[in-house]
Amino acid sequence: MRGGIAALIQGDAANAAMLMFIPMTSFHTTPRFPRGFRCASRNVGLKPAAKDLTLFVSDVEASAAAVFTRNHFPGAPIILGRETIRGGKLKAIVANSKVSNVATGARGVENARRMAAAAAKELGTDPDRVLVSSTGVIGVQLPVEKVEAGIRGMTADLQHDPLVGAEGIMTTDTHPKALSASVGDATITWVAKGSGMIEPNMATMLSYIFTDAALDAATLDRMLRTAVARSFNMLSVDTDTSTSDTCAILANGLAGGVGEAEFQRVLTAGCVRMTEILGRDGEGAEHLLRVTVRGAKDDHEARVIAKSVLNSPLVKTMVHGADPNVGRLLMAVGKCFECSIRPASTDAWINGFQVVQGGERLTFDDAVVRTALMAEVVDLEIALGVGAAEATAYGCDLTKGYVDENASYYSS
Amino acid sequence: MRGGIAALIQGDAANAAMLMFIPMTSFHTTPRFPRGFRCASRNVGLKPAAKDLTLFVSDVEASAAAVFTRNHFPGAPIILGRETIRGGKLKAIVANSKVSNVATGARGVENARRMAAAAAKELGTDPDRVLVSSTGVIGVQLPVEKVEAGIRGMTADLQHDPLVGAEGIMTTDTHPKALSASVGDATITWVAKGSGMIEPNMATMLSYIFTDAALDAATLDRMLRTAVARSFNMLSVDTDTSTSDTCAILANGLAGGVGEAEFQRVLTAGCVRMTEILGRDGEGAEHLLRVTVRGAKDDHEARVIAKSVLNSPLVKTMVHGADPNVGRLLMAVGKCFECSIRPASTDAWINGFQVVQGGERLTFDDAVVRTALMAEVVDLEIALGVGAAEATAYGCDLTKGYVDENASYYSS
Repeated sequence: MRGGIAALIQGDAANAAMLMFIPMTSFHTTPRFPRGFRCASRNVGLKPAAKDLTLFVSDVEASAAAVFTRNHFPGAPIILGRETIRGGKLKAIVANSKVSNVATGARGVENARRMAAAAAKELGTDPDRVLVSSTGVIGVQLPVEKVEAGIRGMTADLQHDPLVGAEGIMTTDTHPKALSASVGDATITWVAKGSGMIEPNMATMLSYIFTDAALDAATLDRMLRTAVARSFNMLSVDTDTSTSDTCAILANGLAGGVGEAEFQRVLTAGCVRMTEILGRDGEGAEHLLRVTVRGAKDDHEARVIAKSVLNSPLVKTMVHGADPNVGRLLMAVGKCFECSIRPASTDAWINGFQVVQGGERLTFDDAVVRTALMAEVVDLEIALGVGAAEATAYGCDLTKGYVDENASYYSS
Repeated sequence: MRGGIAALIQGDAANAAMLMFIPMTSFHTTPRFPRGFRCASRNVGLKPAAKDLTLFVSDVEASAAAVFTRNHFPGAPIILGRETIRGGKLKAIVANSKVSNVATGARGVENARRMAAAAAKELGTDPDRVLVSSTGVIGVQLPVEKVEAGIRGMTADLQHDPLVGAEGIMTTDTHPKALSASVGDATITWVAKGSGMIEPNMATMLSYIFTDAALDAATLDRMLRTAVARSFNMLSVDTDTSTSDTCAILANGLAGGVGEAEFQRVLTAGCVRMTEILGRDGEGAEHLLRVTVRGAKDDHEARVIAKSVLNSPLVKTMVHGADPNVGRLLMAVGKCFECSIRPASTDAWINGFQVVQGGERLTFDDAVVRTALMAEVVDLEIALGVGAAEATAYGCDLTKGYVDENASYYSS
């Protein structure tokens, strides 16, 4: 065992050292908000009883940046969000689960606007200072009256625990997800959800980052894109890119200025850690799978090959069954037709144990590899011997639980 | 129900009409060989008891062409086969199951040569007239002495039923696969295997085509590539491209000349039909899934989008569970970032029942869509309204059976 989900979330420094591909960063044992941020969540009747609506609020207006899904069928909240974020300023985020408000046409966009307006009214701000998100089933109209009624009075519930907000946006997630870390006097807090339909491009399902550091919108945007490229954009649960992916960062400035390099380092580390938490909680997952490719021709090829191994159903089931069928690693590297691969210089390791050398499977004790594959965190490393580029991709094993959850997601 | 596996294999004309995307062709009720072809299969000790070695023989030397996997880690038989096929002439094919002889280095290639030599000796021909194939676990050396001993005396077993040969090359296939059809006075016979690690590129797992038509090697090569592009190269069980994919055609000329256009038509129809049979017998599959994209900008985009929908785990599990979660079709189209997609002109049907119009989910009776999804053959059609190109991709649903088979393939 290299950590486990509790260690992944709590993330003390010793554990961070074990997670060898991320910069060393200390996360707080219990996640907390930066100065001036609070949240509330409620059941407004979209789900039978569980919480289905969350409000995140900054006491003062915050600089903001966001990246959204590249899917050609963006949800109504994405269409509205691209408009909202142009202002570079946010006061709040309102997000619901259960219904994603995607493929709902003009009425869907109108409903997203009504949701922003309801939150703005409750908070005494303008609708264009409120970012809207929705997650859940595609192609169902949002019961917007329930959302409007539910938002009323939520300011009275606002509190300081980010996990409360994380709870209201869960779909198939098995636990609410939040992290926080310090950068000098400032704090960064990550809140996210996402378990299936996960191969983000530009951002993950829903991921919100809050900080009291003072940074302008343009700087936030640049830093967010840098962090996302190494983290959420290297995550895949099932190769399916959601129509609702959103990653937003709000900086309210209450802690004053910070060193940009240090802020970028911690921002990236937290995004990578949150990516690992999302991967470990992938639908049906029993393992966090990390694939690192070294010695690739360039960054693009390193990413393509890492994703190919990570997404191979045969590699994922090999990990799930702890079956030392390591030839599948070569198959998954070799099917990257357009990449530079030299069989004779290709080596591979499973949790540090070498299984392939020069393109040939080594003779080894199956029991050793089987044990390595039974760890909760499985690191697959491929050295290509072609160039100097490297990349790490994050995901999970493929289980019957994934099939179960997704064969009846709409109906249940 | 639109046919079922028995109908797919027997393929009478009425059934062919139901399978609407393939040219109308009558397949023989019981598959048979063209003049001058025979086969034999045996257990030579690679598997505990089931047949694991097959020999296909032409009485006279045949013109031949073949296409092989594009995986960067080709098996030893592929490395040798590329050399062999340059001669454009074959007398026999020898193929074993259980061990694929991939990632086995120089010793693997030497073992493949010994296998060709053993078959050539038994048949009184040259080793360069024998195509070798191996399929099974990657990274294990071939027990070549068992193969050599097993081949001895096989000429005495040669018979006229192609299903006998199909049986010796099965791995996770649930039944042996062979088809035949007439072209004028000539016959074409297809024999194939393949169930997992299936997203062929250049060919499917192992697929052999025999004909007594008189065609030279260059013509065969051109016709084979045309047929494969529309059939095996549009098949995916699990997005994993095998290291052993081989598709070969042998023409011994005993029936004399044929009309090339008619031969191409029947050749393609049989390859498409065999592709459907392989898809329906994908590991764990309970449905044959066909995705047709119309109105795409060009052929490349039509193929990319059809494959994206076909390979989406969320679409595959939707079909498996007969869950009318049709928004997933739009998600899978929309994640083709580089393709031309216009949400407002995008329509979709499930077995002829329209579920999406202009990028929005229609209001429909869930029970009707659920029933459509319960058919053994599920046709998903997407009309993009962008251009005039179209493509069909073939595959299957994703089930717990797939996870079961592949979590212990090496160990069991």
